[in-house]
Amino acid sequence: MKISQLAERSGVPVATVKFYIREGMLPRGEAVSATSSEYSDAHLARLRLIAALADVRGLPLSRVRDILTLIDSPTGDPIDILGRAVGALPPYVDGDRDDYPYARAAIAELGLTYDPGFTAVAQLDEALHALEGAGLDASPAVLHRYSDAMRQVAAEEVAPVADMDLDDAVPYAVLGTALYEPVMLALRRLAHHHLLVHRDDHA
Amino acid sequence: MKISQLAERSGVPVATVKFYIREGMLPRGEAVSATSSEYSDAHLARLRLIAALADVRGLPLSRVRDILTLIDSPTGDPIDILGRAVGALPPYVDGDRDDYPYARAAIAELGLTYDPGFTAVAQLDEALHALEGAGLDASPAVLHRYSDAMRQVAAEEVAPVADMDLDDAVPYAVLGTALYEPVMLALRRLAHHHLLVHRDDHA
Repeated sequence: MKISQLAERSGVPVATVKFYIREGMLPRGEAVSATSSEYSDAHLARLRLIAALADVRGLPLSRVRDILTLIDSPTGDPIDILGRAVGALPPYVDGDRDDYPYARAAIAELGLTYDPGFTAVAQLDEALHALEGAGLDASPAVLHRYSDAMRQVAAEEVAPVADMDLDDAVPYAVLGTALYEPVMLALRRLAHHHLLVHRDDHA
Repeated sequence: MKISQLAERSGVPVATVKFYIREGMLPRGEAVSATSSEYSDAHLARLRLIAALADVRGLPLSRVRDILTLIDSPTGDPIDILGRAVGALPPYVDGDRDDYPYARAAIAELGLTYDPGFTAVAQLDEALHALEGAGLDASPAVLHRYSDAMRQVAAEEVAPVADMDLDDAVPYAVLGTALYEPVMLALRRLAHHHLLVHRDDHA
């Protein structure tokens, strides 16, 4: 397809497509004349992925590039890959500390793994600090509420990875971390709304 | 306490405290001389709340103000209050459309309530659009995985509201929506990490 068709089918303006090509995020098309290139379905898929991360998920371009690099070079230790994927996602925290006391206590309570080098530890620490600042409950019972739900979800998410090779597992893990989060949060908000709308049904 | 003590105990710089006062987000202290004011524990609590929303959650100041306004004037229909709270939180979407086909289909599948005026519907629509763009599974089985977990969480979150009066219920609902989200996402990322770290335990 021509670049104009690529733009139309992806919903990304031609100028933005050209920008992604210049930035090396999208491969050049195959030159068919001095002024025209041909683009494939692989280009379209790549462009839709970039749009999902940049436009829908709203990630800064530098973070989109980090994620594309991870997907393009699926090598290394899975724990390291997960760490780099999580580091490319908000909330962007100061991860240079040696100790995260709120997260450390919560992780011990929940029986998870405390690794201060894993960005989500710093993210949890800040999130728990915010709860305290707002006077919200961060008791073990409340922590277990969220942790139990997330462990159930995570176990189902991780299960298919055992049957994948690395070329499939890395994009699944990286993109799954990034793109199921907004789905889950929207569904939580919708569940609150649904419960409020139907709160008098059993009255 | 003096403003310097307020700053120290909240971790918010004096200049920023003065800015929040000028912006009307934090009440003035009680003047005790021409150059000095006295601040109370209520000031400290308010400041910690602002810091939780602005610094930890990373909300733009205009959105922090929206949330403070909701908390300060807890009147109106609970569904309307929830809608305004959710509208003050990311992802910030174009909510002006009449129809959200991805969200409508998913909500029908999940037995939730489709109200195109509720911002989370537009947020879900964009999130599902991103899944499609990235080639990720958005089948009913996957949607139910997230929805079941979120309905369980939401039911436990909403339960205590029945025993609260409006002055307590509104801050609980508004702040709970905003501040438990990053806790939950960090715990999901930590659950993935934990599963990877221990993936060979049963080999």
